[in-house]
Amino acid sequence: MPVTAAPSPLDDTSLGDGLVSRQSITLFEPPHTLLLESGKRLGPITIAYETLGTLSPARDNAIVICHALTGDAHVAGRHKSDDRKPGWWDGFVGPGKGIDTDRYFVICANILGGCQGTTGPSSMNPATGRPYGLEFPFITVADIVNVHKALVEHLQIDKVLAVVGGSLGGMQVLEWAARYPDKIGAAIVLAAASRLNAQAIAFDKVGRRAIVTDPCFHNGDYYGQSETPRFGLALARMIAHITYLSEQSIENKFGRRLQGSAELAYDLLKETEFQIESYLDHQGKRFVDRFDANSYLVLTRVMDYFDLEATHGPLSQCLGRSNAKFLVVAYQDDWLFPTAHSEHIVRGLIQAGREVTFAELPGGHGHDSFLIDALYPELKRFVEPFLDSTYRRVSTNAAAMHR
Amino acid sequence: MPVTAAPSPLDDTSLGDGLVSRQSITLFEPPHTLLLESGKRLGPITIAYETLGTLSPARDNAIVICHALTGDAHVAGRHKSDDRKPGWWDGFVGPGKGIDTDRYFVICANILGGCQGTTGPSSMNPATGRPYGLEFPFITVADIVNVHKALVEHLQIDKVLAVVGGSLGGMQVLEWAARYPDKIGAAIVLAAASRLNAQAIAFDKVGRRAIVTDPCFHNGDYYGQSETPRFGLALARMIAHITYLSEQSIENKFGRRLQGSAELAYDLLKETEFQIESYLDHQGKRFVDRFDANSYLVLTRVMDYFDLEATHGPLSQCLGRSNAKFLVVAYQDDWLFPTAHSEHIVRGLIQAGREVTFAELPGGHGHDSFLIDALYPELKRFVEPFLDSTYRRVSTNAAAMHR
Repeated sequence: MPVTAAPSPLDDTSLGDGLVSRQSITLFEPPHTLLLESGKRLGPITIAYETLGTLSPARDNAIVICHALTGDAHVAGRHKSDDRKPGWWDGFVGPGKGIDTDRYFVICANILGGCQGTTGPSSMNPATGRPYGLEFPFITVADIVNVHKALVEHLQIDKVLAVVGGSLGGMQVLEWAARYPDKIGAAIVLAAASRLNAQAIAFDKVGRRAIVTDPCFHNGDYYGQSETPRFGLALARMIAHITYLSEQSIENKFGRRLQGSAELAYDLLKETEFQIESYLDHQGKRFVDRFDANSYLVLTRVMDYFDLEATHGPLSQCLGRSNAKFLVVAYQDDWLFPTAHSEHIVRGLIQAGREVTFAELPGGHGHDSFLIDALYPELKRFVEPFLDSTYRRVSTNAAAMHR
Repeated sequence: MPVTAAPSPLDDTSLGDGLVSRQSITLFEPPHTLLLESGKRLGPITIAYETLGTLSPARDNAIVICHALTGDAHVAGRHKSDDRKPGWWDGFVGPGKGIDTDRYFVICANILGGCQGTTGPSSMNPATGRPYGLEFPFITVADIVNVHKALVEHLQIDKVLAVVGGSLGGMQVLEWAARYPDKIGAAIVLAAASRLNAQAIAFDKVGRRAIVTDPCFHNGDYYGQSETPRFGLALARMIAHITYLSEQSIENKFGRRLQGSAELAYDLLKETEFQIESYLDHQGKRFVDRFDANSYLVLTRVMDYFDLEATHGPLSQCLGRSNAKFLVVAYQDDWLFPTAHSEHIVRGLIQAGREVTFAELPGGHGHDSFLIDALYPELKRFVEPFLDSTYRRVSTNAAAMHR
């Protein structure tokens, strides 16, 4: 059962009835700017975040959820009761769900470099009074995590119960574990890797290429222009989207079926003849309405650069320092982050003598499997008891509650 | 041993010493234009082709090699002795090689819709006196094969010993077998499929999208302009190139190694930081020098449309009509044309009671494996005896020669 939170900046965040509100805080005000991994400095930094559930009096039930490349702080619930869609992980985060907000206090913040409220390339550059664009400094997963760690401190939480994330979110979880080994109780790493392989870098590269060769890109200075690099950004998304799905999943869903016709058109200009083409077009169009091209450039490079061992040394050392429990989940048909990546992480943890649970789940939806409603029950079977045992261990309060 | 050919239009094609020359013939002159699968008509059609070896007096040793998407008629040998590179399959086609030009007479013609001498979108449209561009009619694998069949007839060859090809080339082989079942002695289908899956259509789609959204595309009417859609075409090639390689092959070749630097640049504008990026850039740049964007649009659609069963009925029927022997080869790490596609073809042939040899080879270079020098010895172990036994069977002359 939830307990009442001590007075904190969190009081009006979770509105009950599944409603949540976006919060915002500005940290790293000059002269206390953030030292980036590149050596440059950035500040002030505004962080958009949402919380669900109630922080325990002991402040020991906080779970940080790290979103993936194009996600945002709106992890679950609705901002308004008539919102058409809830947050991106609503099926997994909420009362009684995989991450139970009746029991845990969930924090999800938009990442640095993003475009959903946290400082990124589309934010105002205080030095110029105009959006950063490509003046936005080069950032890394470490910088993203450092910003979120500062948010957690601002919320007066010394140690988080768990950090959870998939894909780029999982990279953040690994970085949390390596960088703040004594500040997390557990790490849940889904469909992730300690570094991208050449193929994934290649796909990121062609996506960026689509953006920078769009004539409306204007070297990143397209804000306020009538035309933005929407074709390039849509194309980047379409390419990436193929890599998020498995061969079999799109074969089952679309196969060779035609869109809106029983007959082949024999028309080269018909760009959406097959359903899969129409689907990709739709994904591209939807994406440009919600995402910023410069953020896409920045954050795909963040993923390319991430290499936990290059930064922190061998996994057995850098993850071995943490007392956190680890849950690593891979999906069988995820070819963008193949299971071998997860096994590499698990091997490092085992070598370090750490406690780790590893599961390769069937998936069925490729890399996107960690975001598929139908697969949440299976994931919950791992996450729920894992969080429960972590909470029992780290919290005497919780242990007492459940005795 | 080669025997002297009867007088034919072929006499000066193979020049000895590994030199070959490009031949050209114009067929389908009005009013005898080609009836396309779409119902439209096209003519005249110029066909660029090359031949190697010598046609036997019985004219029974001809092998038609079908090139893939961006290949051409220059299959082997050199046009001039100082050519830096030989033809695209030189390691596999030549005296004593997998397809032995001391024994067989090899014909390779550029495909309809291409840009290497055979009529395509960059050819002059006789109706307008200008290049066809997107006025070029919609074509299919059937049309490509019909044109090559006409070339074979023009060369006074009634029945070819074998038709051989990989990828789109393999699709042509299947179409030959279904369309001209009594005109081929054997079919060798490499890294191919009787139809693309949704994932392959998706990759073709984003490649075309890169071209048509290039502002220099001008709706296909860019010939003679100072700017052509080279960025779009290069990007299309880069995307496709990723799909031709296996995850492991580029991991082994490039991994996360940096290009020309030991240090990360932390520079978003550096587009070729990792070696894999530089490699893709290079592939894109090289490609635009030799290929036409409209041909790329036309020929990727040719691949998307190909569906042998939709056109000719179940494989067991449409391939069962042929007396040809079949050799089907798949590569284990080919994820663009997965082995399941080849198995589907093999199953159809077995159901039809046809003679078929199937091999799944390790590959190691993904879809491109059929074009990799180091893998030719392995491929030769299948192709050489297969052609030998075919030739022994179809040719009493050859049987006598080798008795």
